[in-house]
Amino acid sequence: MGKTIRVGMLGLGTVGTGVYKVLTQNADSITSRVGASISVEKIVVNNINKERNIKIAPGVMTNKVEEVLDNPDIDIVVEVMGGIEPAQTYILKALRGGKHVVTANKDLIAEHGKELFDAEKEHHTDLFFEASVAGGIPIIRPLKQCLAANKVSGVMGIINGTTNFILTKMTKEGRDFNDVLSEAQQLGYAEADPTSDIEGLDAARKTAILASVAFNTRVTYQDVYVEGITKVGAMDIKYANELGYTVKLLGIAKDQEGQVEVRVHPVFIPNAHPLAAVNDAFNAIFVTGDAVGETMFYGPGAGELPTASAVVADVIEVARNIQSNVTGRIGCTCYEEKEIKPIGDITSKYYLRLIVKDEPGVLASIASVLGNQKVSIATVIQKRNVEALAEVVLITHKVKEQNLQDALSIIKGMSITKDIANVIRVEGEDE
Amino acid sequence: MGKTIRVGMLGLGTVGTGVYKVLTQNADSITSRVGASISVEKIVVNNINKERNIKIAPGVMTNKVEEVLDNPDIDIVVEVMGGIEPAQTYILKALRGGKHVVTANKDLIAEHGKELFDAEKEHHTDLFFEASVAGGIPIIRPLKQCLAANKVSGVMGIINGTTNFILTKMTKEGRDFNDVLSEAQQLGYAEADPTSDIEGLDAARKTAILASVAFNTRVTYQDVYVEGITKVGAMDIKYANELGYTVKLLGIAKDQEGQVEVRVHPVFIPNAHPLAAVNDAFNAIFVTGDAVGETMFYGPGAGELPTASAVVADVIEVARNIQSNVTGRIGCTCYEEKEIKPIGDITSKYYLRLIVKDEPGVLASIASVLGNQKVSIATVIQKRNVEALAEVVLITHKVKEQNLQDALSIIKGMSITKDIANVIRVEGEDE
Repeated sequence: MGKTIRVGMLGLGTVGTGVYKVLTQNADSITSRVGASISVEKIVVNNINKERNIKIAPGVMTNKVEEVLDNPDIDIVVEVMGGIEPAQTYILKALRGGKHVVTANKDLIAEHGKELFDAEKEHHTDLFFEASVAGGIPIIRPLKQCLAANKVSGVMGIINGTTNFILTKMTKEGRDFNDVLSEAQQLGYAEADPTSDIEGLDAARKTAILASVAFNTRVTYQDVYVEGITKVGAMDIKYANELGYTVKLLGIAKDQEGQVEVRVHPVFIPNAHPLAAVNDAFNAIFVTGDAVGETMFYGPGAGELPTASAVVADVIEVARNIQSNVTGRIGCTCYEEKEIKPIGDITSKYYLRLIVKDEPGVLASIASVLGNQKVSIATVIQKRNVEALAEVVLITHKVKEQNLQDALSIIKGMSITKDIANVIRVEGEDE
Repeated sequence: MGKTIRVGMLGLGTVGTGVYKVLTQNADSITSRVGASISVEKIVVNNINKERNIKIAPGVMTNKVEEVLDNPDIDIVVEVMGGIEPAQTYILKALRGGKHVVTANKDLIAEHGKELFDAEKEHHTDLFFEASVAGGIPIIRPLKQCLAANKVSGVMGIINGTTNFILTKMTKEGRDFNDVLSEAQQLGYAEADPTSDIEGLDAARKTAILASVAFNTRVTYQDVYVEGITKVGAMDIKYANELGYTVKLLGIAKDQEGQVEVRVHPVFIPNAHPLAAVNDAFNAIFVTGDAVGETMFYGPGAGELPTASAVVADVIEVARNIQSNVTGRIGCTCYEEKEIKPIGDITSKYYLRLIVKDEPGVLASIASVLGNQKVSIATVIQKRNVEALAEVVLITHKVKEQNLQDALSIIKGMSITKDIANVIRVEGEDE
């Protein structure tokens, strides 16, 4: 067992540090699992003199990317620098040089997956990306291998820890969004610029990747319909609770007779649904397949060591392939071309919260407008509000999104309507 | 893509029927995933004339096992007949003949895994067994591949649907065990002879398999300490609820500094633990690793199509290996030899329910006996019972099992003690 498989890393931030730690600390068991040792030969960083809270063996750090990309001794490139460029150029160069690549880069896979997987195929290399979605939770390999017997019809996930932390706190403490966001920023659960998380952009990238793998068709970040959680108020969460729901930000992908729905937005989900119990910064992905039925994968969606768990698992997988002299065994699985369904064509149940004048006949007028657009009502709560206004809360039956939007346009223009305070889709129940 | 990979099945019961259905119904997508078609050439059954609610192509059914085992055209043997013999003889013959084997047979893997995996290795074939634990839920492959970067310290699972169905109903409806068991039998959730499920034997086999894979050491069915759920009463569930716990039957495996704990028994688990929310016949396996932290895999643990999902995934994996001309890529991973820890040496928190004489000083006497054995008490509830008896409910701090058992022997012999009504271990909380 004298063989060594050599890794070159691009980047040594949070994830990179975790990868180095796991490869070092668990070196013995990894060697047993692979049948060869895995050694980190080079780590490319911008500043080799920067103070770091990890000890790297002498001569390993470099600021010259060629020492990895042009180094014939390196078998596997681990890209943990993030962002589109120069990561894309580096990965393509590595693949074209016959090196295998493991990446945690969701931006890149979600936007430029096709070019990368084409290069992987052409050069018979492995390009693995388990860590790009939901950190430490195994989901890419389970979809490609463990659930390969299934036609997967849906994937729904809590795939952004920051927003789940915020929504959990809002739910448990009855507090408002901005208040909890500030606290999350202080605690390090949200970035100084939280846009990518709270506007749903991070979740949208992961949803594009999940949809591509689950439905065997290329779905990009640009295909995903996105709404963030900034409009979710304490009142919405209060009503959700009253009606038996929990508010979550979900990435949702459905294969509807060959048309693919991909969207990220807040939802009302029934309290009995397994996703409703996923709290704090945890992630979970709920998969529906024709054979397995419903299955869920739960765990930490981010963090130094959890994300490293996924990256290093990919490195081990490549190393096993190298050992068996078989790479490109399971490459890109996007062998179909499915259409993206426009958001107006989806069907859903909806929660509506309207502020209206508190006078006779108001509810009848609203119900009539909804009825004309074929929006049928399942539940209504009407409450006296302040200043001669009433709050009307409705849950609809399933209806085409466009019909609902048309009805809302009309309701918005009516003199009785003060505000359409919120509209949130209801997911996870059949009727 | 003209190549065909040929399957011979042994058995056509519930799981076998599901396997045939999934391979047939999803043939197109499976062909795309593998790059070759998968065809069921032969199915060995006892009675080829039996009425079945599935249509099998003519000439496929046979009652001669040689038509599979001695058939040079067959690449993969799918063993779904169950039981130890003749399944073991057939599988060994298949492996020795260079055929790959996929099995759902937990009895066989848990008792005779070593012989089988030795044969797999010797003949460079694949022997996969994902369906042997938790039906449709991916767990064997995730442990072997997706979590391969981790040192796994614990695996805890709800891995028997029948007992989880019974405990869920007892919890929701406040009913007693025997009452709910009868209903479960009528509904088809429990067998006419429910021993293997309710006594924990089925869960013990699965726990042995999980422990072997998670800790890289051979653990057999005989190594597992087992208690079933027949002693769990409505009162225990009522007290669990009062104290913030849910009662579940868990398979538990822990790697404690190279000593392996493996046990199946009812537990009190905190309501906030993800396993507490796994209800009805669903299964879930909670895995703790040094890099990933805590992760959970949830889904249907049995059933025709869910179990077939796992079997067919294994068939696809073998087929991909055949296509890439690489088999035995990841074989048996039991490359260590760890000791099994005796049950008396484990440490745990315990729930005790004692029926004692309702007279002054009784609690003090019990507390004193416990204290002498270093059993320290976290919580006490004492309630007046009928006929001058009281019920004392205790939750202990963590203590060595042997100390607790010694204390209980003494308490049992005391004149104030009417009955040690139940002793249930508390899992899933640190202190």
